[in-house]
Amino acid sequence: MTTKPQPWILTASCPSRLGTVDVVTRFLAETRNYVLEIQSFDDRALDRFCIRVEFRPERDGFSADDFNEAFAERAAEFDMSWELTAPDHRPRVAILVSKYDHCLNDLLYRYRTGQLNIEIPVIISNHPDLESLAQWHGIPYYHLPITADTKPQQEAEVWKLINQYEAELVVLARYMQVLSPDLCSKLDGWAINIHHSLLPGFKGAKPYHQAWEKGVKLVGATAHYVNNDLDEGPIITQGIQSVNHVHYPEDLIEKGQDIERVTLSKAIRYHIEKRVFLHGQRTVVFAD
Amino acid sequence: MTTKPQPWILTASCPSRLGTVDVVTRFLAETRNYVLEIQSFDDRALDRFCIRVEFRPERDGFSADDFNEAFAERAAEFDMSWELTAPDHRPRVAILVSKYDHCLNDLLYRYRTGQLNIEIPVIISNHPDLESLAQWHGIPYYHLPITADTKPQQEAEVWKLINQYEAELVVLARYMQVLSPDLCSKLDGWAINIHHSLLPGFKGAKPYHQAWEKGVKLVGATAHYVNNDLDEGPIITQGIQSVNHVHYPEDLIEKGQDIERVTLSKAIRYHIEKRVFLHGQRTVVFAD
Amino acid sequence: MTTKPQPWILTASCPSRLGTVDVVTRFLAETRNYVLEIQSFDDRALDRFCIRVEFRPERDGFSADDFNEAFAERAAEFDMSWELTAPDHRPRVAILVSKYDHCLNDLLYRYRTGQLNIEIPVIISNHPDLESLAQWHGIPYYHLPITADTKPQQEAEVWKLINQYEAELVVLARYMQVLSPDLCSKLDGWAINIHHSLLPGFKGAKPYHQAWEKGVKLVGATAHYVNNDLDEGPIITQGIQSVNHVHYPEDLIEKGQDIERVTLSKAIRYHIEKRVFLHGQRTVVFAD
Amino acid sequence: MTTKPQPWILTASCPSRLGTVDVVTRFLAETRNYVLEIQSFDDRALDRFCIRVEFRPERDGFSADDFNEAFAERAAEFDMSWELTAPDHRPRVAILVSKYDHCLNDLLYRYRTGQLNIEIPVIISNHPDLESLAQWHGIPYYHLPITADTKPQQEAEVWKLINQYEAELVVLARYMQVLSPDLCSKLDGWAINIHHSLLPGFKGAKPYHQAWEKGVKLVGATAHYVNNDLDEGPIITQGIQSVNHVHYPEDLIEKGQDIERVTLSKAIRYHIEKRVFLHGQRTVVFAD
Repeated sequence: MTTKPQPWILTASCPSRLGTVDVVTRFLAETRNYVLEIQSFDDRALDRFCIRVEFRPERDGFSADDFNEAFAERAAEFDMSWELTAPDHRPRVAILVSKYDHCLNDLLYRYRTGQLNIEIPVIISNHPDLESLAQWHGIPYYHLPITADTKPQQEAEVWKLINQYEAELVVLARYMQVLSPDLCSKLDGWAINIHHSLLPGFKGAKPYHQAWEKGVKLVGATAHYVNNDLDEGPIITQGIQSVNHVHYPEDLIEKGQDIERVTLSKAIRYHIEKRVFLHGQRTVVFAD
Repeated sequence: MTTKPQPWILTASCPSRLGTVDVVTRFLAETRNYVLEIQSFDDRALDRFCIRVEFRPERDGFSADDFNEAFAERAAEFDMSWELTAPDHRPRVAILVSKYDHCLNDLLYRYRTGQLNIEIPVIISNHPDLESLAQWHGIPYYHLPITADTKPQQEAEVWKLINQYEAELVVLARYMQVLSPDLCSKLDGWAINIHHSLLPGFKGAKPYHQAWEKGVKLVGATAHYVNNDLDEGPIITQGIQSVNHVHYPEDLIEKGQDIERVTLSKAIRYHIEKRVFLHGQRTVVFAD
Repeated sequence: MTTKPQPWILTASCPSRLGTVDVVTRFLAETRNYVLEIQSFDDRALDRFCIRVEFRPERDGFSADDFNEAFAERAAEFDMSWELTAPDHRPRVAILVSKYDHCLNDLLYRYRTGQLNIEIPVIISNHPDLESLAQWHGIPYYHLPITADTKPQQEAEVWKLINQYEAELVVLARYMQVLSPDLCSKLDGWAINIHHSLLPGFKGAKPYHQAWEKGVKLVGATAHYVNNDLDEGPIITQGIQSVNHVHYPEDLIEKGQDIERVTLSKAIRYHIEKRVFLHGQRTVVFAD
Repeated sequence: MTTKPQPWILTASCPSRLGTVDVVTRFLAETRNYVLEIQSFDDRALDRFCIRVEFRPERDGFSADDFNEAFAERAAEFDMSWELTAPDHRPRVAILVSKYDHCLNDLLYRYRTGQLNIEIPVIISNHPDLESLAQWHGIPYYHLPITADTKPQQEAEVWKLINQYEAELVVLARYMQVLSPDLCSKLDGWAINIHHSLLPGFKGAKPYHQAWEKGVKLVGATAHYVNNDLDEGPIITQGIQSVNHVHYPEDLIEKGQDIERVTLSKAIRYHIEKRVFLHGQRTVVFAD
């Protein structure tokens, strides 16, 4: 749909120190890479620096390996971790769902049209319901039922599939299961969940019912990284929706779906465009 | 500023039952009152009906007393409470403040220009700071300092002033004191507070600091009726503001002020235009 | 998905006059119909009254025919037109598309899940591209190509299909053709178009390019009824999206898709829930 | 109110070319200035680069003159224009008003509380109405009436005052006069106007009446730089407000005031924080 030239993206992060920007930008200039856009932030609360650069090579024969090798030396001095992302890189995203399909349907649409520049190698569910939707898009669908007793085995299988399909990102698109601490740890920082409330408000089960009980006039959704603290993972983005007295809990569930899917897909886009930096409980998000 | 004809407003509420609307609308028709706008709602969760009608008399010599006397008989059958509000009624609003003046300044502006159709007979504060602002608007200002020891006496004086100035509504415009249960009870349903978070999230002290700790991407404000449950009173309206990683707690405090004042003044307008019905913990708000 | 009891809906409209509300509400009370929600408005600029009532019959054996027959007499006196909509009525919606599928995909999702309570008996396009999407949903798809020369014949076929499939509403879901005045007249008031700008700004072709040229910081979408005035039909609802300097026209096109589909589906919902009254160039929309 | 350390700000702009970022960041590193935040953008449509850096000197005795002198040499090579803004710089803002006071009242509030870090040395009006408001804030107020005949003289006086009070920015806070081409030229790029519509929609007089005629569901406000093209100057920011059928033009005027003042003050903040770059008809705005 678009002829927009996709850039290379360099992201880097390190402890705060004089010269953190310069070590990045000087290297880019010396290696004749043309900078299109920079966003950097030095967090005084955490003494942590991060930077995101979009650039295009000015000379032929740009090699990511050469870039990484040459930059390693300079980065080491600053204890800097970095990542170089190619314009044609399409990250592999494994999706977990249950029965609700509004988020899945939305992600598949954006995947199919290229609006989300990802591969979806596998969809995993504890229910069989959404298989035909997956099939229409030509994506393998695994139905792994779960009970209290079989949870460890089921999660082991989920984990095996995530690895087998070489997922770089895991998305819980309304997967209605509480992950075990073990699986949470494994997914820490590279799995995104969508929760249907403005976290930390209305944590846990049935947030729309909780919202209705309290008589709130706004409901929302929160996309966050999974970590060991249930519904308390670092927030990537949040969206809201006005509601009023005519909306009973079942209406909130329905009205919330639009904001859930928009919020989840935005978080995924931020993640794959390398706009999100994770610093403890907090995120730096260089939004566009 | 406006030549808009102001209507009479009739609001009524009663237990749900067949004919609740008809008893109101038929009376209006029979007494030759022209209906401009109706909003009614029958809450199936609480079995409670409420209606708001804007109307203008078609004949000369409309008398509120006659209206009330004649309607009383019909309303009694439905156990209906009602209120008739004249177009030229300007409710008397007592304002309580501490040191923050962003809400007070906004309310005084809207009062001065007639955007809020109210009288402000008195401003009460536990600090002397905002006296000159009150004076410029020609409004009596009472400085009633408070300590843990003097709280009962101070609240007694506050209560006395509220009565002496015949306030019909009390507004806590960032009054940084926790009211005693006794004063809360007295003000139940006719005092509006502005809390600087999306309640029930971040109750209590320093909500912007709490919000920053959690790394939320939206902050907000909640205008609610005061009741005995601190920061848990029935919500009238809520507003939000996007924030991001560059905003430290002190920035959130500053950024939140716009949304606080807009949210508070909107709640007051809803209240004085008789758009709000209080049903237990929840409100019906016939917004425009 | 929801167990919410669906109500009957009565909508009515007539010239402004004393007693317009009463004639409706009294009839409902006398025929033992329980009112759940009313919204009425008397437009002083157009001297036009309209009302929307949600109700449920209190007695068994409610008959729409009896209702209509009995109400006709009363309505006649007020020159009132009205419409009674059954809870189980699913309006038949014909959809016209070209190549863009974001709106179609969204409508089909909401149709499939029951979020939009409609039938989609037919999809018509001037391109073959979206046939498989229609097929997966089991909906007949007609590819009717169009050229300057064949336009009258093509529109005649479109019109024939709309009638053959007994459509009650026609939706132009990014149908990239300017309808002839003749077809516009036929569809006046019962066809909804989505335009990708905040009309009346950026009428005509390539609105996102126009928006980019002007450097606007907000783009939007407008759902409106089709009439003979191209892109000037009565507005039902509008949505917006923030943008900034990093967004080139191709980005605006992509970013606008979310707001286009949400705006279009909201307008359709308002229409089928009988929330929209058309008064000349303007609409009354009793939103929820 | 805030203990946030205010940074120095360096902004720079030049034709697109390899090394534009590096020339800035390397200089900052070499002169031992600690970078807190960077935003840069290279506009491929205009071949124009711009960058904004917040930094703090790491060594004592930082001198703006030395900085400028040393940087001049490097910048010259890139045909780069730049500006260094001190943390304690409070730009002098001249305000022009007519009779509406909602924007002026808001600006004076933010000025008084330090929320807008500006000086307001002078307020100029073609009406006497707002003098007492100016006086309460201790700001000289000039009443310069205007007629078709006296326009050139009046504008000459306005221009004299702007110079006499050494204004760095001129704000038209609902100044209801069309400036002459001559004055527009003089103010090009350093005067901000607030227009009460979503420009380019509803240019010219009475935009809220135009909006009502069209039956739009959103109204808005646009803050833009003044240039010779009336109501077509480069847009800095825009805000919106939902409206519906109950709002007559006089209601839109009232409802629009909140969004006008918020939009204008945001634009001023962006301008004085050096977040806005003017490139022909378009702006780059590094928002926070």
